[in-house]
Amino acid sequence: MENPLKIGILGLGTVGSGVVKSLEGNDLVSIKKVAVRNINKKRSVNLPVDVLTEDSFSVVNDKDIDVVVELIGGTDPAYELVKTAIENKKHVVSANKELIATYGKELFELAKKNNVIILYEAAVAGGIPIIMPIKTSLCGNKVTKVAGILNGTTNYILTKMTDEGADFAETLKQAQELGYAEADPTADVEGFDAAYKISILASIVFNQRIDVKKVYREGISKITSTDIQYADELGYKIKLIAKAELLDGGSVDIRVHPMLVSKKQMISRIDDVLNAVMVEGFPVGQVIFSGPGAGEFPTASSVIGDILCLAQEMEAGDKNPLAMMQCKHETAADILDIKNSHNKYYINLTAENVPGVIGKLGEICGKNNINFVSILQKGILENDTARVIILTSMALEADIQKAVEEMTNSSIIKDITNVIRVMD
Amino acid sequence: MENPLKIGILGLGTVGSGVVKSLEGNDLVSIKKVAVRNINKKRSVNLPVDVLTEDSFSVVNDKDIDVVVELIGGTDPAYELVKTAIENKKHVVSANKELIATYGKELFELAKKNNVIILYEAAVAGGIPIIMPIKTSLCGNKVTKVAGILNGTTNYILTKMTDEGADFAETLKQAQELGYAEADPTADVEGFDAAYKISILASIVFNQRIDVKKVYREGISKITSTDIQYADELGYKIKLIAKAELLDGGSVDIRVHPMLVSKKQMISRIDDVLNAVMVEGFPVGQVIFSGPGAGEFPTASSVIGDILCLAQEMEAGDKNPLAMMQCKHETAADILDIKNSHNKYYINLTAENVPGVIGKLGEICGKNNINFVSILQKGILENDTARVIILTSMALEADIQKAVEEMTNSSIIKDITNVIRVMD
Repeated sequence: MENPLKIGILGLGTVGSGVVKSLEGNDLVSIKKVAVRNINKKRSVNLPVDVLTEDSFSVVNDKDIDVVVELIGGTDPAYELVKTAIENKKHVVSANKELIATYGKELFELAKKNNVIILYEAAVAGGIPIIMPIKTSLCGNKVTKVAGILNGTTNYILTKMTDEGADFAETLKQAQELGYAEADPTADVEGFDAAYKISILASIVFNQRIDVKKVYREGISKITSTDIQYADELGYKIKLIAKAELLDGGSVDIRVHPMLVSKKQMISRIDDVLNAVMVEGFPVGQVIFSGPGAGEFPTASSVIGDILCLAQEMEAGDKNPLAMMQCKHETAADILDIKNSHNKYYINLTAENVPGVIGKLGEICGKNNINFVSILQKGILENDTARVIILTSMALEADIQKAVEEMTNSSIIKDITNVIRVMD
Repeated sequence: MENPLKIGILGLGTVGSGVVKSLEGNDLVSIKKVAVRNINKKRSVNLPVDVLTEDSFSVVNDKDIDVVVELIGGTDPAYELVKTAIENKKHVVSANKELIATYGKELFELAKKNNVIILYEAAVAGGIPIIMPIKTSLCGNKVTKVAGILNGTTNYILTKMTDEGADFAETLKQAQELGYAEADPTADVEGFDAAYKISILASIVFNQRIDVKKVYREGISKITSTDIQYADELGYKIKLIAKAELLDGGSVDIRVHPMLVSKKQMISRIDDVLNAVMVEGFPVGQVIFSGPGAGEFPTASSVIGDILCLAQEMEAGDKNPLAMMQCKHETAADILDIKNSHNKYYINLTAENVPGVIGKLGEICGKNNINFVSILQKGILENDTARVIILTSMALEADIQKAVEEMTNSSIIKDITNVIRVMD
């Protein structure tokens, strides 16, 4: 190759190292500069010493560089760096879901103005091709739903809890020891990571900007081994589901929360650190993409895919490469309040071991327009209470919240252990 | 849109109608001409009367048309038409697996010479995006394996046989009545259709030309309900698998045949007319794409995806659109003879009800380097014979063929009902 694409990389952590290793020997791309925090740190990759720099801005300002590959994560200083790169008319490849979900609007507009493109396949679902397929092969579809398992850490924890009957806290600890969960696990466990990703996907498929702060979000820390066991008995697995649906009125129902997923759904079989994304639309129907959602090499696969697509298009003389990947949404989505959403519910509660409990539950639910599909009580617990599991048919979230409040206030109902939405 | 992409469509059957309907109201694309066999036939789509023509060559020779969309299937006259379109410097979108698998070499070279592109997402796995993702997001990978369920008709038949314990012949008849199988089912049932598709996929991922006539192929017509039942007992489902593997020595092991697929494999859960494609490589690991493999609308989704990608790139001024989708393979693959392949096997046979049968089987297999994993005999059949099921560990195909021949020649072994390869 006479004129390889010249790239500058920001960040040489796990993903950055994977990218450098994966590009070794590739003559379409030449790595001009790599910005690192500490130039003297020992590294697993071979790079000429003059390629490394501690000055990130020297990368985004380098006149020789065609494409900036941002792999530092977070928004500060990533936002300023990417902004500067775009103003310097460089294309950007990023694996940064937080950056794209938070500053997508500004960055996409700036990119359009500067006639460059931002690619971010690696920001959602790691190695699984998802953004490119929905922007290319599926682009003629009217997509009405996108949903999936978008966080590997929580899926690993839930799978272990299911396989071993273990509780959340001990499983999290194990996952941390194995490097599958961070020391501060909040972003994964409380669903922030999945919320960034579903916002990005929803904004693409519905062609509307999603304000990530408005995405309803519940994590998995309250899930108990009892929930998992009852779910199993009822034909479900518990998964952290991120989903977005375009409703008939035009508003977007988007959220991240645990769900009981029917074992008949393919998505219920996505275990361990795997991710899966389901896209539903017309004319395609339903397609599902699954694979490794994180990790050095899978993420590198998506990053180098973006880089090599740019390289090939620019080599062929395209002055405006991958125009089809440009962001097209300009209006903000009207996001449905969770209270106005309809769901099926699983309710796990304990009640006094006295007559009339089931009658009381029936009365509260009936009053609030909630129908039972199943109700399950199995013997008496040690402290002379009874555990009752309810599965409801479709109900309004606001009605469920009212019913749960009334149950909490009822003297014979001791504790609402969990309320989990259900995907049949 | 001031200058929509002008397309000419060849064929207005199921897929063609789906494409026309799906493009209704889309201002990026304008349908200039549609070639049909009978201009007077009543149709489900609305098209101005001067758009229809019975002269296919008037479409590929029309100076106004930018892109020819070939949806007639088969190679005659599709090959001549597509060739002419390319010589006239038109881009081509095709859903024709037979054309691409058979004449890919000539057509891709011609396209390169004429600086146009051939897109054929719909030729493999209907609505599932697979060709675009492997040529874009996954293009930095060294792919070592691609495999899947690529034929909806046979998957539907095998699923029904599994669910209902029915035999092949009656299930095929049902499938024909429901429109899931053609009047002449050979192309589907004997694996020709899947062979075209796996050839196309393998040629892309291994960057080598595959001669489709060299692809080993077995259909599903010999599968019995007994096989399905024993497979189930042993933890497997029977699926028609198309697969291609790049071996260490550089040759390609490519074939289409039924397999016992472990129920632990996600692919075993792809039922009915669904398709799935698994791609394995470095750095990505394993990704799986699943969805509807055929049908008017799913196929239309892929066709219009290709058309709209071209439209967007050309609108942005790209003179050489989607260069990354160009065919890169130039050398012919060295295809492994099935006799030299290694597999695990399921053998279903009947033997005389006499002492020494298991000993004889053990002797024949041992002599031919074949190890048993399981051997199963359940009681005596009506005609005083015994059915024996053998699962082997990895063995050479040539050894299995020899062993089966020896079994056939043995006086106490009555009949080898089936030999099916196994995917654990």
